[in-house]
Amino acid sequence: MDFLIHVDQSSGVALHRQIYEAFRGAILSGRLRSGEKLPSTRALSKSLGIARATVTMSFDSLLSEGYIEAAVGAGTFVSRSLPEDLMRPAMETGDSGSLSDPVLKAATPKVKARSRGRKRKDGTESIVSTGEPSAVQGYRLSWYATALRSREWLSFSPDEPNVQLSFGRPAMAEFPMRVWNGLLLHHARKRNLALLDSPANAAGFRPLREELAAYLSRVRAVSCQPEQVIIVNGSQQGIDLVTRVLIDRGDDVCIEDPGYIGAQKAFEAQGANILPIPVDKNGIVVDKLKQHEREREGFSPQLVYVTPSHQSPTGVVLSVPRRLELISWAKRVGAYIVEDDYDSEYRYKGRPIPALAGLDHAGTVIYIGTLSKVLFPALRLGYLVVPLDLAEVFTRAKWLADRHSPLLEQQVLADFIRMGHMERHVRRMRNLYEQKRKLVIEALKTHFGGAATVLGDAAGINVVVRFPSELSDDEIVARAKTAGIGITSTSHCYLGESPRGEFQINYAHLKEDAIDSCIGTLSKIANASRI
Amino acid sequence: MDFLIHVDQSSGVALHRQIYEAFRGAILSGRLRSGEKLPSTRALSKSLGIARATVTMSFDSLLSEGYIEAAVGAGTFVSRSLPEDLMRPAMETGDSGSLSDPVLKAATPKVKARSRGRKRKDGTESIVSTGEPSAVQGYRLSWYATALRSREWLSFSPDEPNVQLSFGRPAMAEFPMRVWNGLLLHHARKRNLALLDSPANAAGFRPLREELAAYLSRVRAVSCQPEQVIIVNGSQQGIDLVTRVLIDRGDDVCIEDPGYIGAQKAFEAQGANILPIPVDKNGIVVDKLKQHEREREGFSPQLVYVTPSHQSPTGVVLSVPRRLELISWAKRVGAYIVEDDYDSEYRYKGRPIPALAGLDHAGTVIYIGTLSKVLFPALRLGYLVVPLDLAEVFTRAKWLADRHSPLLEQQVLADFIRMGHMERHVRRMRNLYEQKRKLVIEALKTHFGGAATVLGDAAGINVVVRFPSELSDDEIVARAKTAGIGITSTSHCYLGESPRGEFQINYAHLKEDAIDSCIGTLSKIANASRI
Repeated sequence: MDFLIHVDQSSGVALHRQIYEAFRGAILSGRLRSGEKLPSTRALSKSLGIARATVTMSFDSLLSEGYIEAAVGAGTFVSRSLPEDLMRPAMETGDSGSLSDPVLKAATPKVKARSRGRKRKDGTESIVSTGEPSAVQGYRLSWYATALRSREWLSFSPDEPNVQLSFGRPAMAEFPMRVWNGLLLHHARKRNLALLDSPANAAGFRPLREELAAYLSRVRAVSCQPEQVIIVNGSQQGIDLVTRVLIDRGDDVCIEDPGYIGAQKAFEAQGANILPIPVDKNGIVVDKLKQHEREREGFSPQLVYVTPSHQSPTGVVLSVPRRLELISWAKRVGAYIVEDDYDSEYRYKGRPIPALAGLDHAGTVIYIGTLSKVLFPALRLGYLVVPLDLAEVFTRAKWLADRHSPLLEQQVLADFIRMGHMERHVRRMRNLYEQKRKLVIEALKTHFGGAATVLGDAAGINVVVRFPSELSDDEIVARAKTAGIGITSTSHCYLGESPRGEFQINYAHLKEDAIDSCIGTLSKIANASRI
Repeated sequence: MDFLIHVDQSSGVALHRQIYEAFRGAILSGRLRSGEKLPSTRALSKSLGIARATVTMSFDSLLSEGYIEAAVGAGTFVSRSLPEDLMRPAMETGDSGSLSDPVLKAATPKVKARSRGRKRKDGTESIVSTGEPSAVQGYRLSWYATALRSREWLSFSPDEPNVQLSFGRPAMAEFPMRVWNGLLLHHARKRNLALLDSPANAAGFRPLREELAAYLSRVRAVSCQPEQVIIVNGSQQGIDLVTRVLIDRGDDVCIEDPGYIGAQKAFEAQGANILPIPVDKNGIVVDKLKQHEREREGFSPQLVYVTPSHQSPTGVVLSVPRRLELISWAKRVGAYIVEDDYDSEYRYKGRPIPALAGLDHAGTVIYIGTLSKVLFPALRLGYLVVPLDLAEVFTRAKWLADRHSPLLEQQVLADFIRMGHMERHVRRMRNLYEQKRKLVIEALKTHFGGAATVLGDAAGINVVVRFPSELSDDEIVARAKTAGIGITSTSHCYLGESPRGEFQINYAHLKEDAIDSCIGTLSKIANASRI
């Protein structure tokens, strides 16, 4: 055997490990062939000048991992059970060990290209691995993944501007973080494993589900049992679970247009047949739903998705007559209403309107609650309230999705609500945000005069404003970015044609004294001419 | 107007709220009809003996929510825009207000039963709402949800026994919780919102992705870029995302039999055509995969799912020759290998075998890493390592699933790894668990003699043991429960027929001095005769 082993006493790598690596590499690269005999541990230890026990240790590893095998009384051999096609190329080409990736090269000659086309008949996509140029093989992705890849995706700048108007962030600086962190540490110190493991707990930490049921009854006039509450990782997971439980490819789904992009993308990726329903100053236009009903025999969409408290993005509040009309329509056609009750906490004119889930008691409404806008987005906690007969299937879907949401935050949140911190915080923020909203509206009047139109009602944590400009939306966004302002046009929320010059201003987290100058800058940008 | 309002000064409910509720209830129940005139605020305040401002406040709410409308100079009326069909039943039946749910009853006469059958042609399920007996309406769930409902589901006892052998829990008491909580509080105190919001961050906190890429290179011989690492909520979400990105209904999927139930259920619910592949002492039997390949023209499964480090549940380690064979086969047929590297940290004989993802460099392997067994299950953090050309689609799928995993724990974990705590902890636990494993094996010998067979290799945090008994598995489980021992048979892991008397013993979290007596109790149960 002319196989040389080098060991380097000064390399810092244990000697037995070096010997192991040397043999393993030689076997994988084909330099040592299947069935070839290895030197004895005695001979090797002598020739290398190291302890036999060290060599034995390496051989034990190689044995236990199947690279080599021992025949009683005959010695040690490279394992015969290693796949032959793995070894062949090295033997055929006489390659003596320069292969950087023997496994890959070995397998290449036998690779069959599975499908090189881009699109298959059923709409799924074949992809060509970009990993290695020599490995031309096709893998197919699911219809879902293909939909995700083929559609336009969201892109936001990763840079953080001085003033960020694009995202619905709460006023984090006002959050009672000391209280929260106190509870966090309290529960972190006594983490209790026994609270876990049971599939029944996929629906969430029971005391939190109880607190949320009581909270919803107090503030949203929703009467539900804790069994109907499913804790999820923010409203997006709520939307996702609803999508999976209710929608098959080709199913009719009605959504607001313009509407919330996170829901729209989820329904699209599931293959829903999206029916865009316009929104007016009273919210989703139920007459349009009725028109679909009249015009299509047996019309029976799986669901209608709405953001009634503060329509996303326009900011209108779904009026009570519309709410009742919507429920009545949904019952008639057998559609679920998916009520994304985003921004429900903040209404500055009158009390918050009771949720759809509070107006209906017949199991037509699936309620999605978010806490990201009330507490803080990084929390990743939200909840669903589902009709009782769907609680089990949603719990199973949640279990399969990720077992359960993180327990620690659920414990903290349960205490936070129980002790009254949540409602106290919401009350404080309602006053603060109302004040900030006024400043935004005033600044718009000051700088744009009558040119800027504020859409929507006095609610939520953002306003949508429309103003004329010679510049395109993209140009306005780009110039604002240069001026240190992050702003997003609502055009990506529209399914059909979108109006020009419509932007969302999220004000909850803005510093009061920054509002005026920020709007001033925007007005200068809007009034600039094209160059 | 003969409509009476009762206000109760002592009820604790604000008077304006009481008036609001009374009118709202009357309108919704049909006692006040559309177009009907309301008393003036002056008249009402006089008749009730309360301040007019209070009445006005109630009317403002009713106005702003659309229940009533004002005609200049004519007075206030019940809104004419309320849906007529909502009002009608009360009028028709002459019901004077005893309706518990006016919306529901109002809508009922026009409800069309959509489908009352249980199963539709396409396999989806029609359900009948159990909410209200009067509302007979059918809603259809998705194929996915129907699959979730129709199949047998997991059921574990919610009671916590004295000794729990059923779940793969780590030795929580040994976890450096003070270090962890110190980092937790540190990051909690300086929560930074700017780290969020960007869809690019759906893949996770960048420094954590970097730490994990480096960690995998050190301990699993996997060389990958941080861009390939996607942070998920535990391995179950990893499995779920893989399912959605790769599997369409009817796709062939190969899994180990017996195998991991969390993966099996996910693939089933997605509608995969499951091909069970047997497992022997070297892991998944690749010859069986080759047999499928020979017997079916154009055989091209989407993926093969394996648990190579410590097969779930049998505990065997996939040998190196098998690994190479598997990679070679997967490349040939164009299937992804989904490597769930659960329990990879603990191997008590030799070093851990490098991951499949480390043996292959051509993008065939999707690696799923879990931290639940190393740190603690409530953490809900795991990760995927995907081929570079799939990173974007997995990131999008993650964004749609729940935006991103909770940030705070990601920050803590990144530090925990960077500071060396993770590997230090794993080293400590490896010694501890090896010791506990020995105690389990000894106890089995002592109490069962030669009757108990231990399956699998010296790795992981559980052993599977098979022993004869006159009792059925269910009887053994029930009697163990009575004796304060939670134990689960492996029968639910088998797709075909399962052997009798095969149980999983998770020992990592057991107290050393409890092991012997627990196994002793089990042997008494096993040796008891049926009564």
